Amino acid sequence: MGENIGAAARAMKNFGLSELVLIAPKCKWPNDRAQALAAGAGDILENVRIFPTTTEALAPFNLVLATTARDRDVLKEIHTPEAAARRLRTASGTGAKTALLFGGERAGLDNEEMSLCDAVITIPTAEFSSLNLGQAVLLLGYEWLKSADTTPAVRTRQTVAVPATRAELAGLFEHLERELDAAEFLFPPAKRETMVRNIRAMIMRSGLSDQEARTIRGMIVALVRNKYRGAK
Amino acid sequence: MGENIGAAARAMKNFGLSELVLIAPKCKWPNDRAQALAAGAGDILENVRIFPTTTEALAPFNLVLATTARDRDVLKEIHTPEAAARRLRTASGTGAKTALLFGGERAGLDNEEMSLCDAVITIPTAEFSSLNLGQAVLLLGYEWLKSADTTPAVRTRQTVAVPATRAELAGLFEHLERELDAAEFLFPPAKRETMVRNIRAMIMRSGLSDQEARTIRGMIVALVRNKYRGAK
Repeated sequence: MGENIGAAARAMKNFGLSELVLIAPKCKWPNDRAQALAAGAGDILENVRIFPTTTEALAPFNLVLATTARDRDVLKEIHTPEAAARRLRTASGTGAKTALLFGGERAGLDNEEMSLCDAVITIPTAEFSSLNLGQAVLLLGYEWLKSADTTPAVRTRQTVAVPATRAELAGLFEHLERELDAAEFLFPPAKRETMVRNIRAMIMRSGLSDQEARTIRGMIVALVRNKYRGAK
Repeated sequence: MGENIGAAARAMKNFGLSELVLIAPKCKWPNDRAQALAAGAGDILENVRIFPTTTEALAPFNLVLATTARDRDVLKEIHTPEAAARRLRTASGTGAKTALLFGGERAGLDNEEMSLCDAVITIPTAEFSSLNLGQAVLLLGYEWLKSADTTPAVRTRQTVAVPATRAELAGLFEHLERELDAAEFLFPPAKRETMVRNIRAMIMRSGLSDQEARTIRGMIVALVRNKYRGAK
């Protein structure tokens, strides 16, 4: 269906894939529904190449991995999408021309098509498994991009996150503890050290920026001022 | 839109997620389009809970991670989907009630909603980035399942792949090399050892099963017989 082709193109473009090859498409081509679903990925549809058979379509490729949901009596390695992306990325890096092969929405790939592939890919799912073609392309594209992505697993926004200097933090600790002493919060004296340690740990855990440390000091000033005002 | 809710439910079910909460949905509910798109995930829609505000919806949760495509001036950790799934899985394992928060298709999440989240998640994409709600749910669901998935990265089907015994392989080597000697293929003698080593490596690399080793021996027998027949 044109919808599937359009969704596949859009999924591809999100993850930096650009070369789409269709094998004996059943819909007419060019296709309005494909254009509509492709949204901003129209350039991928314009550059589509079409072949009548899988053999002709795969001819130039050195490494072809095929997605399959079905059990097959073919003795091939089965890759997770992540392992497949790594293998494709590695081969591609040594100059091999690589391809991912997806079957049609209904029938999947037949045995002859599978026989031209180096290995198969199965997407892990729960017992309920109902991924359409566009979703399979999306997940494989995502793993392809991830296989070369150097984004750290966890980060804070560089532009905003200037972690507080130790001087700023020490100033905050001193200020807060002085006011808490004055308010007789750090009581009894025997527990003071533990309470201080816990409060400091709580503050450190939040990974304050300089600005935030200053904001908290401002809050302390304001709260203390209010207390004295109330006491008048 | 109902379509987005249905697609989200279907994506969830593929990856073993079941509890869907809607915050002030703009479409009427129950919703026919949602039902149609959910396909086999109707049970998730039947158990949907609806809240008028994000604060009420998130009330029972201990850890909430929010997806965002936009840059925001909020000082929060940004996780990759993979790191987010690990963090949720770990927290969930210690008894915390965890949630993933997705914004509406157009507006995303506003700053007040973000302020209730522990950290944000950004899906890595190419420069072109146009993932809809259902696709974002799909990718996060996939990473959630993967975070507990023990499928080996590369495997062969257990039921089919009985790797050949060394005896079967040795028999194949001996048989093939005897016939190649008879055919004067392993020539000149000075190169025989290297040729044999290369042929054996090629065979080993294909990871034959017992049955396949026997099939190859059958092929050798047939080819040799044909040769003698042709020679008559």
